[in-house]
Amino acid sequence: MAKRVAVILSGCGVYDGTEVHEASAVMVHLSRASAKVQMFAPDVEMMHVVNHCKGEPVADKRNVMQESARIARGEVTDLNDLDVTAFDALIIPGGFGVAKNLCDWATKGKEYSVLPQMEKVIKGFHQAKKPMGMCCISPVLAAKVIPGCELTVGHDSECEKWPHAGVAKSMTELGCRHMNKNVGEVHVDKKNKLVTSSAFMCNAPIHEIFDGLGVMVSEVLKLA
Amino acid sequence: MAKRVAVILSGCGVYDGTEVHEASAVMVHLSRASAKVQMFAPDVEMMHVVNHCKGEPVADKRNVMQESARIARGEVTDLNDLDVTAFDALIIPGGFGVAKNLCDWATKGKEYSVLPQMEKVIKGFHQAKKPMGMCCISPVLAAKVIPGCELTVGHDSECEKWPHAGVAKSMTELGCRHMNKNVGEVHVDKKNKLVTSSAFMCNAPIHEIFDGLGVMVSEVLKLA
Repeated sequence: MAKRVAVILSGCGVYDGTEVHEASAVMVHLSRASAKVQMFAPDVEMMHVVNHCKGEPVADKRNVMQESARIARGEVTDLNDLDVTAFDALIIPGGFGVAKNLCDWATKGKEYSVLPQMEKVIKGFHQAKKPMGMCCISPVLAAKVIPGCELTVGHDSECEKWPHAGVAKSMTELGCRHMNKNVGEVHVDKKNKLVTSSAFMCNAPIHEIFDGLGVMVSEVLKLA
Repeated sequence: MAKRVAVILSGCGVYDGTEVHEASAVMVHLSRASAKVQMFAPDVEMMHVVNHCKGEPVADKRNVMQESARIARGEVTDLNDLDVTAFDALIIPGGFGVAKNLCDWATKGKEYSVLPQMEKVIKGFHQAKKPMGMCCISPVLAAKVIPGCELTVGHDSECEKWPHAGVAKSMTELGCRHMNKNVGEVHVDKKNKLVTSSAFMCNAPIHEIFDGLGVMVSEVLKLA
């Protein structure tokens, strides 16, 4: 039987939405594994819109679900309508949209909260003991909703290869156990059925990120 | 020596820009082949903006280069600044942005013209006998700029698998020789060093499209 996987998007573009290459890699690997995929996004306004040439916010308003549909080729469902019983697994690609539109970690830091419909879905998969895959910055969602979970956002020591290593320390301060992992590796928190991987947290060639997400997808499907 | 490849984007999203999965696949395959990639897009207003949930235009204005930067993670250069002598090959992923922003085929049909800076670049690579890869609807650019070229946009007989087969007939009417090819195949016009592939012209699982673009990238690099 094909595994049924819900993929959550948070816009379209690394600086204010889903990182498009992470989402695309997840879709390619799920397709190769014959999984049945449905994409979801919240029907809410984006926190802000970033001019991706300049990396600066602009005075524009866009909807998370409509922008996510650019990745989903039109086939995206309101996150409010996600029925956990209809799926075997959940995957959340990264991108700043996770920290801006699925929670407010980007602006609130440690005092952040998760979008209610997102929190409900993660709690639902967790309580049903269904596996979840999160990469790049997405594990920040698990850090809040599954207190004390084990996860990776890459390495905890900053260098050219790991420019965002500070996030690992933040995860530890939130009570999680952070595991250093390379871009081609994942950490599997067996108790919580949580599979995490660094993806673009690592300054690596895009094919290494693609391959790392292949490992994440594979480990999620094994647990499903 | 690493092959230097210019990739042309036309926005971000299948209905009004570059098809994000085609662009991502091209980037992954080029990265795996150790190519040196630079992305370009025209600094012009998009023909229109499409709500990708509804597939309908909305009253919004966006810039092709800024939206392309969502795929390029900020690293996109004005197409006007592309110096053909600095590259070994050119690749143009598909998406309606090609037919709306790089030329006006979407609205003018057979009487279309190609954006001057795009035409100049294609002529430049052609005259320098450097290879070009085009997929999905992108070969429409070659059809205008390289009269009489051989190309594929998939199959010329409409069915569930080939919903856009009418495009093949249009290519023939423009004086090109259309070759039927499956999604995992390419056609190589050796005289013109033009490599074409159907990609999302085919209603196929996304990993098959990914693999087909791997063949296209590989054939382009062989000719470079």
